[in-house]
Amino acid sequence: MNFKERAKELVSKMTLPEKISQLIYEAPAIERLNVPAYNWWNEALHGVARGGCATVFPQAISMAASFNDVLLNEVATAISDEARAKYNEYKKFGETKIYQGLTLWSPNINIFRDPRWGRGHETYGEDPYLTARMGTAFVKGLQGNDDGVKYRKTDATLKHYAVHSGPEALRHGFNAKVSDKDLYETYLWAFKYCIDNADPSAVMGAYNRVEGEACCASERLLGDILYGEFGFSGYVVSDCGAICDINNNHKITKNEAESAALALNNGCDLNCGSAYKWLKTAVALDLISEEVITKACEKLFEARFRLGMFDSDCEYDNIPYEVVECEKHRNLNIKMAEESMVLLKNNGILPIKDSENKVIAVIGPNADEKSVLLANYNGTPSRYTTILRGIQDASNGRVMYAPGCHVTKENPIHNDSIHIEEAVIAAKKADIVIMVMGLNPTLEGEAGDAYNADLSGDKADLELPKSQRNLINKIAELNKPVVFVNVSGSAINLGFEDENFDAVLQCFYPGAEGGKALADVIFGKTSPSGRLPVTFYKSIEDLPPFEDYSMENRTYKFFKGTPVYPFGHGLTYSEIEENWIDENTVELTNKGEYDTAYSVLKFEYIPHKNLCGFKKVFIKAGEKLKVEF
Amino acid sequence: MNFKERAKELVSKMTLPEKISQLIYEAPAIERLNVPAYNWWNEALHGVARGGCATVFPQAISMAASFNDVLLNEVATAISDEARAKYNEYKKFGETKIYQGLTLWSPNINIFRDPRWGRGHETYGEDPYLTARMGTAFVKGLQGNDDGVKYRKTDATLKHYAVHSGPEALRHGFNAKVSDKDLYETYLWAFKYCIDNADPSAVMGAYNRVEGEACCASERLLGDILYGEFGFSGYVVSDCGAICDINNNHKITKNEAESAALALNNGCDLNCGSAYKWLKTAVALDLISEEVITKACEKLFEARFRLGMFDSDCEYDNIPYEVVECEKHRNLNIKMAEESMVLLKNNGILPIKDSENKVIAVIGPNADEKSVLLANYNGTPSRYTTILRGIQDASNGRVMYAPGCHVTKENPIHNDSIHIEEAVIAAKKADIVIMVMGLNPTLEGEAGDAYNADLSGDKADLELPKSQRNLINKIAELNKPVVFVNVSGSAINLGFEDENFDAVLQCFYPGAEGGKALADVIFGKTSPSGRLPVTFYKSIEDLPPFEDYSMENRTYKFFKGTPVYPFGHGLTYSEIEENWIDENTVELTNKGEYDTAYSVLKFEYIPHKNLCGFKKVFIKAGEKLKVEF
Repeated sequence: MNFKERAKELVSKMTLPEKISQLIYEAPAIERLNVPAYNWWNEALHGVARGGCATVFPQAISMAASFNDVLLNEVATAISDEARAKYNEYKKFGETKIYQGLTLWSPNINIFRDPRWGRGHETYGEDPYLTARMGTAFVKGLQGNDDGVKYRKTDATLKHYAVHSGPEALRHGFNAKVSDKDLYETYLWAFKYCIDNADPSAVMGAYNRVEGEACCASERLLGDILYGEFGFSGYVVSDCGAICDINNNHKITKNEAESAALALNNGCDLNCGSAYKWLKTAVALDLISEEVITKACEKLFEARFRLGMFDSDCEYDNIPYEVVECEKHRNLNIKMAEESMVLLKNNGILPIKDSENKVIAVIGPNADEKSVLLANYNGTPSRYTTILRGIQDASNGRVMYAPGCHVTKENPIHNDSIHIEEAVIAAKKADIVIMVMGLNPTLEGEAGDAYNADLSGDKADLELPKSQRNLINKIAELNKPVVFVNVSGSAINLGFEDENFDAVLQCFYPGAEGGKALADVIFGKTSPSGRLPVTFYKSIEDLPPFEDYSMENRTYKFFKGTPVYPFGHGLTYSEIEENWIDENTVELTNKGEYDTAYSVLKFEYIPHKNLCGFKKVFIKAGEKLKVEF
Repeated sequence: MNFKERAKELVSKMTLPEKISQLIYEAPAIERLNVPAYNWWNEALHGVARGGCATVFPQAISMAASFNDVLLNEVATAISDEARAKYNEYKKFGETKIYQGLTLWSPNINIFRDPRWGRGHETYGEDPYLTARMGTAFVKGLQGNDDGVKYRKTDATLKHYAVHSGPEALRHGFNAKVSDKDLYETYLWAFKYCIDNADPSAVMGAYNRVEGEACCASERLLGDILYGEFGFSGYVVSDCGAICDINNNHKITKNEAESAALALNNGCDLNCGSAYKWLKTAVALDLISEEVITKACEKLFEARFRLGMFDSDCEYDNIPYEVVECEKHRNLNIKMAEESMVLLKNNGILPIKDSENKVIAVIGPNADEKSVLLANYNGTPSRYTTILRGIQDASNGRVMYAPGCHVTKENPIHNDSIHIEEAVIAAKKADIVIMVMGLNPTLEGEAGDAYNADLSGDKADLELPKSQRNLINKIAELNKPVVFVNVSGSAINLGFEDENFDAVLQCFYPGAEGGKALADVIFGKTSPSGRLPVTFYKSIEDLPPFEDYSMENRTYKFFKGTPVYPFGHGLTYSEIEENWIDENTVELTNKGEYDTAYSVLKFEYIPHKNLCGFKKVFIKAGEKLKVEF
């Protein structure tokens, strides 16, 4: 029997209450059928998340900046190795709890439509093509997809279907108005691409409505498009609490029973939340048939069979616990972090040479901050290297440090005092100043997790906090050589820094070894090769309102203004000349002095500018290389 | 002219409002007299605190555990070097702000009377003699006291005068009832000793009342005893806001003007707070004479002159900024941390040898926690080594890590998930388990700074939080070799751990290099030599109520019960035999296999047991050594 048939047979032995119980993410055990309890909720956005120690790779937006989907696939393979290794041990306790299972609710392939969106850093940026390619590489790495393998390694889940992209504060009741053009060309494009190319096991329905229909219960989005047009053959899971939103916040239905029936009838098989407990009532009220429940249950058990949960011959059962945070993964992590660093400006100050003769002042509230390495939806690294520590370890000379200011508070409390004078002293004594500023995951993130409570995780504007602007101005006045490192998951207005400082680096949230990787770049062990996956605008004044889901005047494709740094921008330490021989062939010449990785981007004009290809290569100083698309 | 005469001359040129302004800690500039603004508030409990980067030595209670006052004097010298180096740079900005000056409000020589007191870890423990010796060594190190030197290096401040020791929640209005015996024998003993032996520049008045009189305005405590009997010749500063407490909370006076007059008339020269702004009113109301104000002002300026603030030939002006966190201080920090580790139990499991052949599981919420290195009243280390990192760096074999539980929360929130199963997996796979449990400075500390809001920084009992007890029980069930490391600033009931685990180590709050030092001990690079400066009781049930200031049934001197570990307890890896030849001479024989530091304690019985001498020596394996008192 294949997995589908085995699932059908198993489910046929279940009572209606048992079947209903299995459609909820905290599926209880059915002992008489030897079905152990299973919690479907696990996360793996950039490493196994919330499940204890794991290799914490750079945040999704950072990995997008690598423009290297081959490397991302290796990263996802490492992640699924760790997820499996952990599951193999956790399951020995007889059941697997939240964040211990094989069903990974990653990647987030929403479009980073507006730079204010707090969760934007969970995505691969603003471009559907980049998102699609990265999403595909990631899903394949998670799921295994190895030739000749019987089982699936883990289940990847594309989220949040669909259109979802803020504001966070409104997400539980928001109705996104979207033209068909924007829907297909922007919001759904990567979902379709990933389904076509990576066969994802699952899709997660979003909190919001689209054109009046709740995403988790949308006839059009689920029935017509996802299962219909896109031919998706996996299961759909609701975002957590999204089914209750249908009555509580969207007010489409009157109660949980109606919401549950509406969602399940439209193809949302699994409920993260509790609404599906009312399915029994819904059956009694004739809002749903037992057949629909049975079918969903069969789909879910097919997935569990396909993951090898009920067999002893699964190829992945032998992945040992020792792979978790192994040296190989650490090195891969460093490599990905290096490739995700985006050099935005450099007047030649970088890389820093002869550090033994130089005093370096590292200044800024993000320099020695662990949280900016980890971003959100993260695991626990048992070792990590902050930016400060990375610079200390890599420099052969004296490194001074001064936080200089609090990340947001203009007047820190008395027992947490940070002296701007200390930063000025350090800068004055230094030959080179490295400022490490930006945001952190408590300032931009998901509603409920981020702590800027008034905005529920979103940003009000693109400026750095006043406490930091003050410090930046003070340091700028000294006219010292300054390397400015911006640590953030989203676009910041870096106009002042571009004008006033010698080099500007964007390092997003670079993972547990981010400090090591940044130091490798700063001291020239590696040439930077990242590119911006989002436009760095000057101001939100140049953009439509946050709530406006039209793509007009948004992203590099449709933006009418002049950004500080455009999508795709990113320098290396070398000088790469692109000579396009025809539309699918480019000859690269490394005319500079550094070996470097380099992403060639291919654009088409339909009629707007549109990324349609990219390929990352390594090219030595003096070398010529032909790249075919 | 000497400093006193110069102060007198300068003050003679001031108007009454100017003089009053100088009695407040945020003393403004008097430009016409070339007096720069000076903020008197700075801290240096175990390193320059709150003033930016500095070497963060172990917390005071840890350093007390070293029973090594010679080493503590070296530490205090390093601290005053850093304070001076920082002041020398900060003053170039034309004034020095809070936490930038030379008047250091350290050490805290209160008696750790009750293990519940949150601020107990700021002290040198429960014994007046130990406190006195350590306080003296510390004050001398801070103030310089070098032969032939004209200026004072920094001002040390004995605090909190007097009797102060919790509860934190009540401190602003508490009236301590104390017998004369306890007052002199316990609470004031170390103050007198330090004044006799170290000539401290300043004393800080406490918040509380003693026998009805507010400490900062007490005729008996200040006039009769401090200035009278003890012959104290320095200045007295109020604790911050303590003068306003006299009317607001103690209700001794009706308003700030009366409080200010009462305090200053009784000898409290400097006000941390704002009450002394009402001195003008107090003069107008004839509550105080201008002469008293003038005299206090002269005392304060004498101190500033003595610190070299108005001269260009101060010996300490040349201490360069480079001493801050220099290698020499780092090594001293490691040494002090090593000597402060207290080995409470060892069945031979320690030191760990042949680590290359051993899998070690490091488990617990304090293993990778930076805050427990730093305690409170701390500076910012630009490098630090957590306990986990120290073990990872020192071990030659595999080190697994699992936090296992939250430090207090029994059910961590969903995005912060910690799996007890992960700890069990790690323990099962390990040859040796090192559990790193305990408290942190948000759970025990000062009212307003610590975050256990219901208790204002105090502890309710001596038990580890339930979340940790649960994990401890789970690990104990596995019957693995376990080294239990307790990280706390106060006594914890370690009865279960003593019974069930192979080794128990108390490491208090061990400073920025605490992880390195602990690893040196665990892997046998150094033999432990710390001793408990406080009694480790079984339960608060064995003690009088927290609010009871009688010493009856408190501390090793008067406690009638059986503690888990007594005051002074502490093992080495070797076996030291003490052979007392007479009451002042002891012959030590190192009969074990390890070279080790060792503190000889000398007790007298008057009639209760009473520490009256200690001396720390280094004794090689097989060596005999005579120690004279």
